[in-house]
Amino acid sequence: MTIKVAIAGARGRMGVEAVKAVGHAADMEIVAILDYKHDGLFLHEEQVNDHGEGYPIYTSFDVLIQEKAPDVLLDLTTPDVVFTHMNEAIQHGVRPVVGTSGLQMDEIEQLTALAKEREVGGIIAPNFSIGAVLAMKFTAYAAKYLQDVEIIELHHNQKVDAPSGTAMKTVEMITKVREAHKQGHEDEKELIEGARGADVEGMRVHSVRLPGLLAHQEGLLGGEGELLTIRHDSFNRSSFMPGVLMSIRHVMNDKELVYGLEHILD
Amino acid sequence: MTIKVAIAGARGRMGVEAVKAVGHAADMEIVAILDYKHDGLFLHEEQVNDHGEGYPIYTSFDVLIQEKAPDVLLDLTTPDVVFTHMNEAIQHGVRPVVGTSGLQMDEIEQLTALAKEREVGGIIAPNFSIGAVLAMKFTAYAAKYLQDVEIIELHHNQKVDAPSGTAMKTVEMITKVREAHKQGHEDEKELIEGARGADVEGMRVHSVRLPGLLAHQEGLLGGEGELLTIRHDSFNRSSFMPGVLMSIRHVMNDKELVYGLEHILD
Amino acid sequence: MTIKVAIAGARGRMGVEAVKAVGHAADMEIVAILDYKHDGLFLHEEQVNDHGEGYPIYTSFDVLIQEKAPDVLLDLTTPDVVFTHMNEAIQHGVRPVVGTSGLQMDEIEQLTALAKEREVGGIIAPNFSIGAVLAMKFTAYAAKYLQDVEIIELHHNQKVDAPSGTAMKTVEMITKVREAHKQGHEDEKELIEGARGADVEGMRVHSVRLPGLLAHQEGLLGGEGELLTIRHDSFNRSSFMPGVLMSIRHVMNDKELVYGLEHILD
Amino acid sequence: MTIKVAIAGARGRMGVEAVKAVGHAADMEIVAILDYKHDGLFLHEEQVNDHGEGYPIYTSFDVLIQEKAPDVLLDLTTPDVVFTHMNEAIQHGVRPVVGTSGLQMDEIEQLTALAKEREVGGIIAPNFSIGAVLAMKFTAYAAKYLQDVEIIELHHNQKVDAPSGTAMKTVEMITKVREAHKQGHEDEKELIEGARGADVEGMRVHSVRLPGLLAHQEGLLGGEGELLTIRHDSFNRSSFMPGVLMSIRHVMNDKELVYGLEHILD
Repeated sequence: MTIKVAIAGARGRMGVEAVKAVGHAADMEIVAILDYKHDGLFLHEEQVNDHGEGYPIYTSFDVLIQEKAPDVLLDLTTPDVVFTHMNEAIQHGVRPVVGTSGLQMDEIEQLTALAKEREVGGIIAPNFSIGAVLAMKFTAYAAKYLQDVEIIELHHNQKVDAPSGTAMKTVEMITKVREAHKQGHEDEKELIEGARGADVEGMRVHSVRLPGLLAHQEGLLGGEGELLTIRHDSFNRSSFMPGVLMSIRHVMNDKELVYGLEHILD
Repeated sequence: MTIKVAIAGARGRMGVEAVKAVGHAADMEIVAILDYKHDGLFLHEEQVNDHGEGYPIYTSFDVLIQEKAPDVLLDLTTPDVVFTHMNEAIQHGVRPVVGTSGLQMDEIEQLTALAKEREVGGIIAPNFSIGAVLAMKFTAYAAKYLQDVEIIELHHNQKVDAPSGTAMKTVEMITKVREAHKQGHEDEKELIEGARGADVEGMRVHSVRLPGLLAHQEGLLGGEGELLTIRHDSFNRSSFMPGVLMSIRHVMNDKELVYGLEHILD
Repeated sequence: MTIKVAIAGARGRMGVEAVKAVGHAADMEIVAILDYKHDGLFLHEEQVNDHGEGYPIYTSFDVLIQEKAPDVLLDLTTPDVVFTHMNEAIQHGVRPVVGTSGLQMDEIEQLTALAKEREVGGIIAPNFSIGAVLAMKFTAYAAKYLQDVEIIELHHNQKVDAPSGTAMKTVEMITKVREAHKQGHEDEKELIEGARGADVEGMRVHSVRLPGLLAHQEGLLGGEGELLTIRHDSFNRSSFMPGVLMSIRHVMNDKELVYGLEHILD
Repeated sequence: MTIKVAIAGARGRMGVEAVKAVGHAADMEIVAILDYKHDGLFLHEEQVNDHGEGYPIYTSFDVLIQEKAPDVLLDLTTPDVVFTHMNEAIQHGVRPVVGTSGLQMDEIEQLTALAKEREVGGIIAPNFSIGAVLAMKFTAYAAKYLQDVEIIELHHNQKVDAPSGTAMKTVEMITKVREAHKQGHEDEKELIEGARGADVEGMRVHSVRLPGLLAHQEGLLGGEGELLTIRHDSFNRSSFMPGVLMSIRHVMNDKELVYGLEHILD
């Protein structure tokens, strides 16, 4: 059986990749694009199906659902519209697969309750990269046993914030499995301020910014006489697509809304 | 309550470390050393308790058990005696913690059955390094999702065999979670023989041998646009001790014999 | 003074990058494109100058030289035409900067002699990446002191040949500074064929091929108690442009033809 | 011809290694040990020559020189006595090889002048590790071309100061070949203080401290589309010995005092 997928946010950077990935998946079919700014034109030139045809574009989600009855809504839009989309989707039994971060905690709770009531599967994944999610999961798991941890995250020099969101998320996951404790020598002295990095409950986070770099992260866990290093390198946006496809397949067989790709990696 | 530990194999390289580690653990006490070659002398100079005293040495396990009633037997001897030790230990309700590899499969089965019958906890761990065991576990787990895997193991140039035992064990664990498949380009060509490494069900294993190196392993898992690397560095034998202590604590609360440290990492 | 540059091979993958890079360099001007297949059309849409104008395209090098009098010919074409281009350029005092590999040794000698006679600067660089050239140079230099070397090169799984050309070039450079000698344990044993990699005068070369990877190389040099690692990561073709611009500037002040970017790094 | 070596500081950690290394070098002979605290006893048990004999110990450098006429003084003592030793050695034509850091600049100048006058070779090397010196040299050299640099140095958690001396020395070498400039995004923002590390003329230095680690340093140099990484791992003190032996051989053929092992790597 082919999974019928509607995509919102198809013109964005993630969207362009997603249309290609879903469009080429043997067990999926893009039945519609939701695009409020649609002006009668098609999408980008390369966003066509295997027959070279464009996809039907809708400016109303309601009409889209009625006419195309999608199984799944893949939503790669922005926080301001995604709640409405998800709410409407779940109401109509359309399973949401959402890559947009930025939903409020109470919104997520509301949607989770609704999905449970209607027995509709769904997933909200701030990060669709399977490798990145595995890296975070492993780092946090290992921190139970090797409790001295430092994170080095490395990005191109066009990134403004330090540390990265992924580093902050990793650190947060670690704080759930280990007690806060000061790391390093008790009389440690920074000869130059900042040398020892950002301090989060004793863990140290270091942010490297260099031209040429893409997105990389290393979790270093030290123990007596040994070091465990978990590193993830993101080379391009296509790395998110296997996680998107896995999510689409997963929600077809689930009856709940989950938050985080890690929960569907068994 | 203090755990009473008897140690066999205390003069070996692992044993020397273990006497120090167990001797300094606040919740443990070394009640006896089992040493058939005992000639009336003490162990190495540094193998003493916190009061600078040597440990009582026995040349008979039977007598040792009767006089000292240990809770745990930490056995770091050789394959030829370990089965007898374990068998006798379990019979007397002494929990075995064993670092010796080389037991036969049927011996392990026999001991497992006995331990179950007597409700005695125990563990046989070919590798007591928590970091190394986590690295293998993570690599195998990740291979379910990122199925193209290469292993690079790096050791000092005094190591004879290639690949290393840990690399072989890792590869074996991976074969259980992924289908064999040829990796690399289908028309791949080695301009010089061996460039692509050892082939194990399509996975490639590369062995680096250099002076200066100790014991290191990297698992590289590639996916569309991303790379996950899991690396473990062993800097010295002390890295095995946290796993030894964890095992001693674990068997006190278990009623089964398990094989592999990975099974007591929850 | 602005350097007047003519570019041959502008439609190729390197060419597209080069038109952008030279077009944006403050001290350079693209005065002409040499393109035999020119059909009256401009180049790719994005290949325009800062005023949005296309560049003048010539189908004859002779006419180009007469009308535009370039200082430098940047040649990114194929081996079959590059000799003729270089010969003609040097004859007319136009300095060649050439990225095409594949020239015969006797052709290079002939061009070198001609450039010397006419006192015209020029460079042939099989690899324009400054980082890659530095990495090779450093690895070879270090091998004088740390004579046990292994090379790990890592590329995407669409690469057919193993080892890579860069690895072979690195190894060749090393053989000039150290004596061949067997590395590893003298009784070394491969439990699985190929584990120890390709053997080049005792050095070992390992080729990793994984989806997701781009182009990476590590030189590992081991000594008593230490390891020196020199790693280069190529993330995209833009990494060649600084070397192209450096070469264009260099040939303006040289009176010889050199082979290899390493010779203009002082 | 065998080089006759006298060693001062033989009981220290470096000294113990040095006695072994020089004692086993085929072209060297330890003719005397200078040890003011000598109380008639020999050195450590293992500090003997190949015949199992201890080395002659002197408590006066004057007498030592007269009786043993060493070619070289290998001095591994402390800053308070090393100047006197060097001065006296050079006066008597004994070539000093000195691993002690902490000499004042004017002392070094004075000794350099004296060595020149007497035409006596000598070397003061704050770091005898060839690999570490090569790593610093390469990082500084590369920074001429790839001017965005970050240093990550990693040490065991018993180290008090951050950054390490080697990192500071590396950074100092880099400042001589590149202009200071702010690295990273111009609007860069640290969400947690210290994330971007220590700032030295725009370069960023990050200090990792973990149990298990020994002494490691990575220089990362980023350029358009590429990354060059130069890493050095020190696994134990024996890594200093090849540099010590190279220095002893070097001073036999030199007539000047040099500062830094990098100056005798050709």
